[in-house]
Amino acid sequence: MASVFGGVEGGGTHSKAVLVAGDGTILAETEGPSTNHWLVGVDTCIQTINEMIQRAKMEAGLDPNTPLRSLGMSLSGGDQKDAIDKLIAHMKDHFPSLSQHYLIANDAIGAMATATDRGGMVLISGTGSNCKLINPDGSQVGCGGWGHMMGDEGSAFWISHLAVKTVFDAHDKLAVPPHDVTYVTKAMQEYFQVSNLMAMLPYLYTNFQKPHFAGFCKKLAEGAEAGDALCRHVFTQAGRMLAKHVQAVLPAAQEPLLTGDLGVPILCVGSVWKSWELLKPGFIEVLDKVASSDEVKGRFRGYSLMMLQQSSALGGACLGAQSLGDVLTMDYAANAAVFYHHCFSSKQKDLGITS
Amino acid sequence: MASVFGGVEGGGTHSKAVLVAGDGTILAETEGPSTNHWLVGVDTCIQTINEMIQRAKMEAGLDPNTPLRSLGMSLSGGDQKDAIDKLIAHMKDHFPSLSQHYLIANDAIGAMATATDRGGMVLISGTGSNCKLINPDGSQVGCGGWGHMMGDEGSAFWISHLAVKTVFDAHDKLAVPPHDVTYVTKAMQEYFQVSNLMAMLPYLYTNFQKPHFAGFCKKLAEGAEAGDALCRHVFTQAGRMLAKHVQAVLPAAQEPLLTGDLGVPILCVGSVWKSWELLKPGFIEVLDKVASSDEVKGRFRGYSLMMLQQSSALGGACLGAQSLGDVLTMDYAANAAVFYHHCFSSKQKDLGITS
Repeated sequence: MASVFGGVEGGGTHSKAVLVAGDGTILAETEGPSTNHWLVGVDTCIQTINEMIQRAKMEAGLDPNTPLRSLGMSLSGGDQKDAIDKLIAHMKDHFPSLSQHYLIANDAIGAMATATDRGGMVLISGTGSNCKLINPDGSQVGCGGWGHMMGDEGSAFWISHLAVKTVFDAHDKLAVPPHDVTYVTKAMQEYFQVSNLMAMLPYLYTNFQKPHFAGFCKKLAEGAEAGDALCRHVFTQAGRMLAKHVQAVLPAAQEPLLTGDLGVPILCVGSVWKSWELLKPGFIEVLDKVASSDEVKGRFRGYSLMMLQQSSALGGACLGAQSLGDVLTMDYAANAAVFYHHCFSSKQKDLGITS
Repeated sequence: MASVFGGVEGGGTHSKAVLVAGDGTILAETEGPSTNHWLVGVDTCIQTINEMIQRAKMEAGLDPNTPLRSLGMSLSGGDQKDAIDKLIAHMKDHFPSLSQHYLIANDAIGAMATATDRGGMVLISGTGSNCKLINPDGSQVGCGGWGHMMGDEGSAFWISHLAVKTVFDAHDKLAVPPHDVTYVTKAMQEYFQVSNLMAMLPYLYTNFQKPHFAGFCKKLAEGAEAGDALCRHVFTQAGRMLAKHVQAVLPAAQEPLLTGDLGVPILCVGSVWKSWELLKPGFIEVLDKVASSDEVKGRFRGYSLMMLQQSSALGGACLGAQSLGDVLTMDYAANAAVFYHHCFSSKQKDLGITS
């Protein structure tokens, strides 16, 4: 199977796998649960990956006992070198017929490799959050991606946690809630099937499941769309936090990323972006301020938010192939699409200022 | 062993056990690791308790096969009824010779029972944090005590987390640190034995141990005492947060707690209080504002901070005895001592205003 490349997109809640031929033809696609090894452990992570790929081989009519040419994995939690080396060593050891070569990149890098080979920003908001600037020369600067214990600002987990914490603090009178907590309290009782705050503790400790906790975000999105002020507030806050990630890495962006017609390209990955309209007020507010700040004044003329049209498992497969010097043909124009464009100079025009 | 009462103080890091005679004589004291069942699990929790008590029986020259009259446990994490019932059922099942009767109270209630039978506030800042107001009529109002995933503000865990998060955010440029992070970064590298932030992840996830993470607070206290501004800042913030717990429950305090000579009695429990001088600026600032607020104006004339001179295992034993209608003689005057007194009216005198 010398010419078949495998790719994996490993999220905090769902995962995907893909098999691709060298000309870019997708041979098979499969799905599975979380493969974030920080969340599910090394054994479950590699078992899920093996199971998805072997299933994909069979779907593609390939022999599951013949290893792939390479397996490139774009994994949330795929950063720390020791941990990555351990994952690969375990895969080689346990599943000798899975693949000849392996590569693990974090999910931001895999997403970017799906959309373009010219660099840009990746801003992930799924179960967790992360931001990476990848410059045209390949240099990288990151912000976030440390997980729910040390960040994840603007992610589904963070939004859920902020809403729940607001209810706890209001109940305790530790803080005055910014808006009425009635809707969120009721939604929490329904989603977690609890009748009081004490009953939430198992969901936070003994039975903590990050994907399940983060899943509450969907109920909050429904509340926000129905007009609940607290639900709208937590999404606006998330928008602010996500924009702050952009602000953090922006000063390191090289010229070609700033001067393109579409402004700074920001690839938005993860299901929280489905609620872009809810994130928008906070997101725009922060970046408007950044644009007028001294640090980037004049250099930051606009930005485009893009969404992948393909799983970043494809980018993973591409990175795996490249690491061997092989070429995997990518149709970047088809793999990502702009869904929002913001131009600061046209805004200045609106204000009667000639740019 | 009809007349021997057992007590347990269960913390997030350490635990203590005591055996007491009805006249208040302490027969034996033993120590053990964490017995917070949310942190260590039910099995470890009850095994540690059994081991401490059986060792205490032997130290006291008692037969370990004869059950105590009662075992009263003051446990951090000892709130949720289902969980408490489960713990007691497991103890009865696994250790039939441990005790005839059982009682579990949360650590705030156990601490209060050690210091007084007249009520007051308990403000815990150890590994975690918690606050309870116990009125003279027995009614209770709480704030916090939800653990590190939903609170613990002002605790050793929270202080450690705030310091570490400040380093992460400064590194990421996600937020501007309030003070230079050099000392805290170096202390973190030494305490956790890491050379970069990525290497912190195992301490936050796969190998997370709350007591170990919270133990970093001691290094921060050392830094604060040596004058490091960021270390001093995180303790000041902790002082503010602890005072906000007092603020939250204060409006529910009944008259006798407000009108005593020493002002509102606040029993301070947990090792973070060893750093009272570091907490003090933030703590005093918040309560000064509270005293002049409309809600409690005139009613909140001062407060006294007290520290236990005995383990709250003693209070646990007392509550256990009381639940059977038995009497355990307590020398409250010897069990707690005032270490700080604040009187708002004398402050007004300083300002030339006659109270």
